[in-house]
Amino acid sequence: MSDYEDKPGKVLRVALLGCGVVGTQVARLLAEQADDLAVRTGARLELAGIAVRRLSHPRPGIDTALLTTDATGLATRSDVDIVIEVIGGIEPARSLLLAAMEAGKSVVTANKALLAEYGEEIHAASRAFGADLYYEAAVAGAIPILRPLRESLAGDTVHRVLGIVNGTTNFILDRMDGSGADFGESLEEAQSLGYAEADPTADVEAFDAAAKAAILAGLAFHTRVTAADVYREGITEVTAADIASAKALGRTVKLLAICERSGTSGSGASGSKASGSGASESPEGVSVRVHPAMIPRSHPLAAVGGAYNAVFVEARSAGRLMLYGAGAGGTPTASAVLGDIVAVARNRLAGTRGPELSTYADLPVLPMGDTLTRYHVSLDVADKPGVLAPVAEAFARHGVSIQAVRQTSRGEDALLVLVTHEARDADLAATISELQALPVVRAVASVMRVEGEGDQ
Amino acid sequence: MSDYEDKPGKVLRVALLGCGVVGTQVARLLAEQADDLAVRTGARLELAGIAVRRLSHPRPGIDTALLTTDATGLATRSDVDIVIEVIGGIEPARSLLLAAMEAGKSVVTANKALLAEYGEEIHAASRAFGADLYYEAAVAGAIPILRPLRESLAGDTVHRVLGIVNGTTNFILDRMDGSGADFGESLEEAQSLGYAEADPTADVEAFDAAAKAAILAGLAFHTRVTAADVYREGITEVTAADIASAKALGRTVKLLAICERSGTSGSGASGSKASGSGASESPEGVSVRVHPAMIPRSHPLAAVGGAYNAVFVEARSAGRLMLYGAGAGGTPTASAVLGDIVAVARNRLAGTRGPELSTYADLPVLPMGDTLTRYHVSLDVADKPGVLAPVAEAFARHGVSIQAVRQTSRGEDALLVLVTHEARDADLAATISELQALPVVRAVASVMRVEGEGDQ
Repeated sequence: MSDYEDKPGKVLRVALLGCGVVGTQVARLLAEQADDLAVRTGARLELAGIAVRRLSHPRPGIDTALLTTDATGLATRSDVDIVIEVIGGIEPARSLLLAAMEAGKSVVTANKALLAEYGEEIHAASRAFGADLYYEAAVAGAIPILRPLRESLAGDTVHRVLGIVNGTTNFILDRMDGSGADFGESLEEAQSLGYAEADPTADVEAFDAAAKAAILAGLAFHTRVTAADVYREGITEVTAADIASAKALGRTVKLLAICERSGTSGSGASGSKASGSGASESPEGVSVRVHPAMIPRSHPLAAVGGAYNAVFVEARSAGRLMLYGAGAGGTPTASAVLGDIVAVARNRLAGTRGPELSTYADLPVLPMGDTLTRYHVSLDVADKPGVLAPVAEAFARHGVSIQAVRQTSRGEDALLVLVTHEARDADLAATISELQALPVVRAVASVMRVEGEGDQ
Repeated sequence: MSDYEDKPGKVLRVALLGCGVVGTQVARLLAEQADDLAVRTGARLELAGIAVRRLSHPRPGIDTALLTTDATGLATRSDVDIVIEVIGGIEPARSLLLAAMEAGKSVVTANKALLAEYGEEIHAASRAFGADLYYEAAVAGAIPILRPLRESLAGDTVHRVLGIVNGTTNFILDRMDGSGADFGESLEEAQSLGYAEADPTADVEAFDAAAKAAILAGLAFHTRVTAADVYREGITEVTAADIASAKALGRTVKLLAICERSGTSGSGASGSKASGSGASESPEGVSVRVHPAMIPRSHPLAAVGGAYNAVFVEARSAGRLMLYGAGAGGTPTASAVLGDIVAVARNRLAGTRGPELSTYADLPVLPMGDTLTRYHVSLDVADKPGVLAPVAEAFARHGVSIQAVRQTSRGEDALLVLVTHEARDADLAATISELQALPVVRAVASVMRVEGEGDQ
């Protein structure tokens, strides 16, 4: 005997705001899977309307009678129970979601930018109006990551989240790694294959990944984190030389979203963060950053190819988890939206809501300069004695300890590759500035942070 | 302002049944993380008592005043809200859980054997008494897999679940693959390192994995599946020759839990299952099986080493997901139990329950003989003309199509390796019997199923 058979005739009405790549798939799946969804939630989910910008745009498979340009009217209509926002961007999505929640609707959104920037306001409205708010699709598409952080790990202490959360940049870096091509060529290839947009800024400058990092860090550390708190470096400066240098050391380059809890915590976290040097101690707080980094080829994230996403989570009791899957695309993202629709529908029928966002830990977000990182530096130097000493002195002057040095002769020249232990990012950056001015250094060929050592 | 601050003084009392490897960690974490758990759930979680078999057993860090041998009394005590069962096995766990639910307690269990065998009874009691029932820790330790199947993928159609869900056998197979050692030696090593028990039957004969497969299949396909429905083959018959044969073909051997939906479904699943041959059509139903299988080394599951677990899920909209992490161990399993405790505590405070088990699809479980599989067969044959024809005829007589053949000369002898297209398992087995009787075949050196082609 199923839930649905218990309560025949129950109906929940769904308003869809936006009918682009994701919205079209949500509408299709709501129709195609109507019978299954009815049994699984306990009520039929009926599409009440679809808000679009232009009625005239061709939308195969969509019932035009459902279309409206009055998004606010639809989102607050008295016969609507659940509002799905898949418009993206800040406005009008923000106002629509606020209006929907004020009108007592349960809300599902895939809008990472909105949540990363106005998350506090949106969550406050959800609390104030008792409205359910789910957004699994906002991070890493179909990969279940927010629910595990919010629920499965609710009895654990997360130390670190390390993720490949942008498929476009992962595709580009994968191509650069595979073919030796430079950034420009690989971007063009990604564009021609539909993996990158005509204006690729949001992806390649890592705005997209930074928004996701803010959401992940907030959930992982029970702390308010906004997009503005996230240190952000895109992949446009990654060179073929960087990739080659990584390869020579058994590493690969990935754009990583990194959320780390550092220092000793008041919440019982017993500072398990392994440090190579042991010399540095990071102040208590969280570090949230997105930048290209070299990781060992044996790291679980190194094998994440093409436009796939993966999130690596390290928790005190659970240990290391990795969640992997399609990070974008209309259908995978729609799967995550549908999962959330079922959740809010079940909650609505039971007269309850999902867990509130908890931000009680209220940890400070550390500035990038105070974050402990490791650098990989490769220098073009003259192949003669007396080169290493001034280079080593530059590192020492900034308190940066060196983990490994390798010099490769190339005739007159030599390539000097150094990998540091953990140090304050500001000290590492200052060291690089000093190296650039050293007479023995002809050029700094590649500088990149190193992550994920010891994660395997 | 947190939930907890909203409702100061709320307390939920927790009874712990069992204080072994997992129970000890649950008790420790409840105490160590008390403040965090209070804020995250909205009530303090107090340990009301711990039921054990022998009071005299030394338990460092456990308050002996909490211990009792009266498990039933504790599980039904009027001041207890939540009952955690980490005893394992069928009795007394079954009776205790039923009594606890009848007494209105919310229940969390890590008991895979009980759920795989008496799941219907336990779920019926949960429904009848309105008692919450969570069991994330029963499958794959700390890896969040049941919640994603029950909730994140609630709006999707799962086609297949392919998992490495037993760490002991994965450790043994990993050693066999790495060192060329045989099963016996690798088992001894696993035992000496604490990865296998003195009586390893439950692991190596795949009873443990079969119970987990039953639970996974039930949730994935909304269908009742019990341990008795699962076809089960352990790893005791896997030889060093099998491992070597897999290696030669770029494959590796894993003990897989395989849950597949086959045939066209009435629920809108549009039969996306790729078949190598296209000739065979499987009847509608689900196939649930646990057996060693060769998978390509490039498959995401191939890289899962040591005692780790991973579950690969293929859904119609979400595409391919993989969830990876620690599959066993006291602390990781306790992390999953704690996550469930927070969930039932939140539900209890909100006066609601988690989603019910849905079994509405009620698909038939196919017998193994009717399941479509692929075989890898390696034969010792004479290195002379006229060998391949009778071998090929044996396959053809049973309607089995061959995908690849490779013959390697070894002087007088040759090794003939064949990989088939998909065929009914019964037809493949009948073919092998016939090959064993063929005069040209000196010995059947290795027979193993092949899985995961085309999953990358």
